[in-house]
Amino acid sequence: MSSTYGEMIKLSIFGESHGAAIGMTLDGVPAGLPVDFDKLQEFLNRRAPGQNDWSTPRREEDRPEFLSGILNGFTTGAPIAAIIRNTNTRSGDYNNLKNCPRPGHADYTAQVKYRGFQDAAGGGHFSGRLTAPLCIAGGLCKQWLENEGVRIGARIVSISDAIDNYEPDSLDCELDQIPKDFPVFTASVAEQMKQRIAQARAEGDSVGGVIECYAEGVPAGLGEPMFGGMESRIAQIVYGIPAVKCVEFGAGEFASFLTGSQNNDRFFPAGDEIKTTTNHCGGILGGITNGMPILFRAVIKPTPSISKPQQTVNLETGERTVIQIKGRHDPCIVPRAVPVVEAAAAIAIFDAWLEFKARR
Amino acid sequence: MSSTYGEMIKLSIFGESHGAAIGMTLDGVPAGLPVDFDKLQEFLNRRAPGQNDWSTPRREEDRPEFLSGILNGFTTGAPIAAIIRNTNTRSGDYNNLKNCPRPGHADYTAQVKYRGFQDAAGGGHFSGRLTAPLCIAGGLCKQWLENEGVRIGARIVSISDAIDNYEPDSLDCELDQIPKDFPVFTASVAEQMKQRIAQARAEGDSVGGVIECYAEGVPAGLGEPMFGGMESRIAQIVYGIPAVKCVEFGAGEFASFLTGSQNNDRFFPAGDEIKTTTNHCGGILGGITNGMPILFRAVIKPTPSISKPQQTVNLETGERTVIQIKGRHDPCIVPRAVPVVEAAAAIAIFDAWLEFKARR
Amino acid sequence: MSSTYGEMIKLSIFGESHGAAIGMTLDGVPAGLPVDFDKLQEFLNRRAPGQNDWSTPRREEDRPEFLSGILNGFTTGAPIAAIIRNTNTRSGDYNNLKNCPRPGHADYTAQVKYRGFQDAAGGGHFSGRLTAPLCIAGGLCKQWLENEGVRIGARIVSISDAIDNYEPDSLDCELDQIPKDFPVFTASVAEQMKQRIAQARAEGDSVGGVIECYAEGVPAGLGEPMFGGMESRIAQIVYGIPAVKCVEFGAGEFASFLTGSQNNDRFFPAGDEIKTTTNHCGGILGGITNGMPILFRAVIKPTPSISKPQQTVNLETGERTVIQIKGRHDPCIVPRAVPVVEAAAAIAIFDAWLEFKARR
Amino acid sequence: MSSTYGEMIKLSIFGESHGAAIGMTLDGVPAGLPVDFDKLQEFLNRRAPGQNDWSTPRREEDRPEFLSGILNGFTTGAPIAAIIRNTNTRSGDYNNLKNCPRPGHADYTAQVKYRGFQDAAGGGHFSGRLTAPLCIAGGLCKQWLENEGVRIGARIVSISDAIDNYEPDSLDCELDQIPKDFPVFTASVAEQMKQRIAQARAEGDSVGGVIECYAEGVPAGLGEPMFGGMESRIAQIVYGIPAVKCVEFGAGEFASFLTGSQNNDRFFPAGDEIKTTTNHCGGILGGITNGMPILFRAVIKPTPSISKPQQTVNLETGERTVIQIKGRHDPCIVPRAVPVVEAAAAIAIFDAWLEFKARR
Repeated sequence: MSSTYGEMIKLSIFGESHGAAIGMTLDGVPAGLPVDFDKLQEFLNRRAPGQNDWSTPRREEDRPEFLSGILNGFTTGAPIAAIIRNTNTRSGDYNNLKNCPRPGHADYTAQVKYRGFQDAAGGGHFSGRLTAPLCIAGGLCKQWLENEGVRIGARIVSISDAIDNYEPDSLDCELDQIPKDFPVFTASVAEQMKQRIAQARAEGDSVGGVIECYAEGVPAGLGEPMFGGMESRIAQIVYGIPAVKCVEFGAGEFASFLTGSQNNDRFFPAGDEIKTTTNHCGGILGGITNGMPILFRAVIKPTPSISKPQQTVNLETGERTVIQIKGRHDPCIVPRAVPVVEAAAAIAIFDAWLEFKARR
Repeated sequence: MSSTYGEMIKLSIFGESHGAAIGMTLDGVPAGLPVDFDKLQEFLNRRAPGQNDWSTPRREEDRPEFLSGILNGFTTGAPIAAIIRNTNTRSGDYNNLKNCPRPGHADYTAQVKYRGFQDAAGGGHFSGRLTAPLCIAGGLCKQWLENEGVRIGARIVSISDAIDNYEPDSLDCELDQIPKDFPVFTASVAEQMKQRIAQARAEGDSVGGVIECYAEGVPAGLGEPMFGGMESRIAQIVYGIPAVKCVEFGAGEFASFLTGSQNNDRFFPAGDEIKTTTNHCGGILGGITNGMPILFRAVIKPTPSISKPQQTVNLETGERTVIQIKGRHDPCIVPRAVPVVEAAAAIAIFDAWLEFKARR
Repeated sequence: MSSTYGEMIKLSIFGESHGAAIGMTLDGVPAGLPVDFDKLQEFLNRRAPGQNDWSTPRREEDRPEFLSGILNGFTTGAPIAAIIRNTNTRSGDYNNLKNCPRPGHADYTAQVKYRGFQDAAGGGHFSGRLTAPLCIAGGLCKQWLENEGVRIGARIVSISDAIDNYEPDSLDCELDQIPKDFPVFTASVAEQMKQRIAQARAEGDSVGGVIECYAEGVPAGLGEPMFGGMESRIAQIVYGIPAVKCVEFGAGEFASFLTGSQNNDRFFPAGDEIKTTTNHCGGILGGITNGMPILFRAVIKPTPSISKPQQTVNLETGERTVIQIKGRHDPCIVPRAVPVVEAAAAIAIFDAWLEFKARR
Repeated sequence: MSSTYGEMIKLSIFGESHGAAIGMTLDGVPAGLPVDFDKLQEFLNRRAPGQNDWSTPRREEDRPEFLSGILNGFTTGAPIAAIIRNTNTRSGDYNNLKNCPRPGHADYTAQVKYRGFQDAAGGGHFSGRLTAPLCIAGGLCKQWLENEGVRIGARIVSISDAIDNYEPDSLDCELDQIPKDFPVFTASVAEQMKQRIAQARAEGDSVGGVIECYAEGVPAGLGEPMFGGMESRIAQIVYGIPAVKCVEFGAGEFASFLTGSQNNDRFFPAGDEIKTTTNHCGGILGGITNGMPILFRAVIKPTPSISKPQQTVNLETGERTVIQIKGRHDPCIVPRAVPVVEAAAAIAIFDAWLEFKARR
């Protein structure tokens, strides 16, 4: 397992935050699928840092170089490989992270697991920067799914206690209504969210939030039983995104407050198709898609990097110490995580769709 | 993927609710691990139906027959196989399920996916009954982890709106304080929960709830980065349990309301070890265990089988129709799901523990 | 890995020679595939012992009980599980095998690997008996491939120094001309082979041989590059058959004596298809099928169980000792291995065919 | 499967012969393993083209750039990624290969499988050039195994009909006696082999040969039963090397001419260890290593690229045609394939060794 995902496609992600490059290989993609590089770059730009007020000022272009698997704008059937060079490379001042692990980060667990051999600079392989290659793979899968009529989009539901209670229509999830710049349905709540972020920044603190993702146009029948169900597949990859601490589908936690007669989605005939009047199941029954939009939420914890002093332990001396994280960090990664969640969903659904074709 | 799970161990679960037998094979288990069959049976009994007021009266002994892989009370290193014969077998009156899918069940998605060839009786391979072989595998892994000092337990947090707000100590999770019979910390809330179940039964309806699971004594360093992180591994298998719609770790969804300075768990020295003052991360940082207890919650939706009339579609005619599910069903599967969640956690952690040993 | 095989299908084989039962689970099979149980039994009978002069007199019916995955003669899409009860069960006199490992057997390596916990009786999980569940899975795949126009057959090329130099037509491999009873093209050589076996039996010794397997009607395009090529996939599973020590494709070892101009198979147009004038590549170029029959040979070593006294070591004392294997054993397993090789080929090709469909 | 290999380690190889770069990712390697880059380059140089009379004059430095997973000379525990830039890139004159497939090459099967979207230049992903990244991964595994006392080496047994009948000592395989430059035990036969190659070149033809590989110092107990046996694992990866058509272990095909009493390797006590007087089993019994050297042979077919005119089919017109392959090609790739076979063996054994540790 580790940094490899997929049944039909094998996605392998590599790289360390301050190493030479980060990248991905994507094996098992059919030949002849078109690639729109401009559209991919647009997608990657949504994740890239330093583009606005509410993200880190570290500016790095996430411009992938494709090394194989695509020729004349189409996939060749051979593994696709792409890399992004790191411009902010190791500067030698990261030994501190090994000795005094930052609370909420993987510094301590990496130190225990890799016994000091890990590349600790910038979080190394655990850096949020590794979501860039995830977005390369996911951006491609998203394009290919679109060609099959599957559209994926996500929106911010909440940041800290600023919550957008708007619920889009259950049939098409109003994907076209999600603003591109700051993907929140209700404009006034979007302003509140930005205020929460600005306030956290001002206080040297951080905030988290909730992202809701939709996949519309997914045919019924995708997913395999038990551990191969769509919830299992999507949760496995979404939990690969740093800072995610909850993944829920459809009504999710709220379903525990409903009775069966309230929660069960009623079937009705809609032309040649069968639809449901509600979508509490998030488009998935028994792990298999039912033709309604897939709907899930990912909860992002507040960025662990804060400039406030924090208590930790000096691993060399075993004594308590206080660290203060320098540099400028995102006070909230939720907006930048939106395309990452979309990417993860796209990879999981594309993988399941190929598997579906195999047994059709 | 499908009904197979694991990296180091390969768990394969088979069977249909009303077929000849259900069972599992568990490949990749080291030789020489002791098996306590009585203890395993005790564990399986916690899941078995018909044992008390709040579960289905269908009584079936979940008594596995082991076919291979265990000799003289120890694992042989060869794949372990076990089956449970079905005593309630197919009776021919299930064609209805294919034509008129039950809302909230996998009837419709199985029909689309398997084009009518699925064994629809009793939900077939999608039946909750398939959690029995999961408990065989999980009960074994639980024993083996105990021998390594890892203890796993779970409790009911809520059923419907009856919520137990008690939070156990973050260091040992008070596993010994969880009542065996009805695993709720606060006795008065346990009574409320039973009332909610009784009421649902009286109304021909059902309720869901939330289960919280703890793994105490897990060494730091388990889990792999990105898609092989402990959250990914646990979520994948827990979502294999029918009716789970949310899996969250540590503070989970609540983390989105905290600031980074509140949510980050502070490290402190505790003798030779490093511990944290809180456990908002659920014992997992960057996908890797940090030595604190693993803590996660699984939300169980209300049982979809209810006796109230429900609207659905007759797939043959394409017309709306109303079905009323006969037979007697659990108005709430949460209590019986508690050992199933423990089993799933045990399998995921045992698998990660073997992988950890490989690279130590 | 271990006792699990496949990409699209997951075959898991379990059981020990003298345990309760042997069996298999086959996950990932599409729904709606017909199963002809009589035909399957006929296929299994070809492997079963005690049917003629040249095999072991231990008589055991290989009659599988199907537990799941098949209903009304069609696959349901859920995992298929089948078991065969062992009638010759453990008798307690096998401790000797642990202490004094039989040369050429897995007794010694199993003892080292499993540290004495293995089920040593009759070779345990390493017994040739485990090829029976392989034949259940393979017999099913063979039927399903036949429905797609792919026919698989094998013949004995040699036993000891009795060699059948006949080479069938490269286009259809003359599958219909292979005798069912003793699958050798040239009748006179078949008699020589039987004599070699009879002689080995008389001398308390054993002989090996070579099996050639053909898959005719395989579409071009199956197999994946590099480690997923058809040679890799077939070799992996064929080497899972005990006693196989060589797997070669097409001209195989002989190709090393040819020049490129001799060995290269020339393309020619044959109606709408492209064929080759020779089949030195065994129907596989770059790991991908070219539409010509797949052709490979498996070399079976002489049965290690012989009644002649043999030198070994007493593992308890560390002293040299001599063992004499009691009981009656096959002096040559080549004839019974023929359907096993066909089964292995069928599983590998069926798996590749499903994968092919996924990316078509 | 496809271009990904391994259980504990996941090797993913990417690239096309005339694309931007070729490379590999190697996930699952433990942290803290030392890397000797000079030694690795020395190993890669053994495979590199253009170094002597008997190989292709196309000169390309196989100098990998490591992008991740190694820091300060030690593995970090994160995936290792390395690339080699292609200097001979696509020149546009390869469309011919799509229309008129070269006999013996993957041109035709790639065309069918990828429907014309494959990168056909220089054989694309099917090029022998892809063995360079295999050697990066294998060269690393070889170093790490050496640190555990496992040494791997290979020698040329034959080229065309020039056969070296020398058999090294069964205990240490005389690895130190294999000449580095042209790895043949018997000097006079080495000269014959070079003559065969020179002659083939002069005639515009090619020759193949046989490579024998040894792994000495492998502990007993590596490998898993059935499909996870060492033969299965080694064969899977060795068959991933282009042009391999036979993989055999120990006595291999020759075992079919022996009786059981001749072929069975007798055990004897050797100090604290158990050894065998012969090594007909190639160090593997029941798929598990027995502590004797692993010994296998790979047969390499004559290079399909020859300058003699060859008959093929024009796929556009469906007519017969004759092609003459331009450019200069290796008349024999056997010498350059020697380190590739070693690399493949090292990867398979290192993977099995990690798996062994997990269940110890």
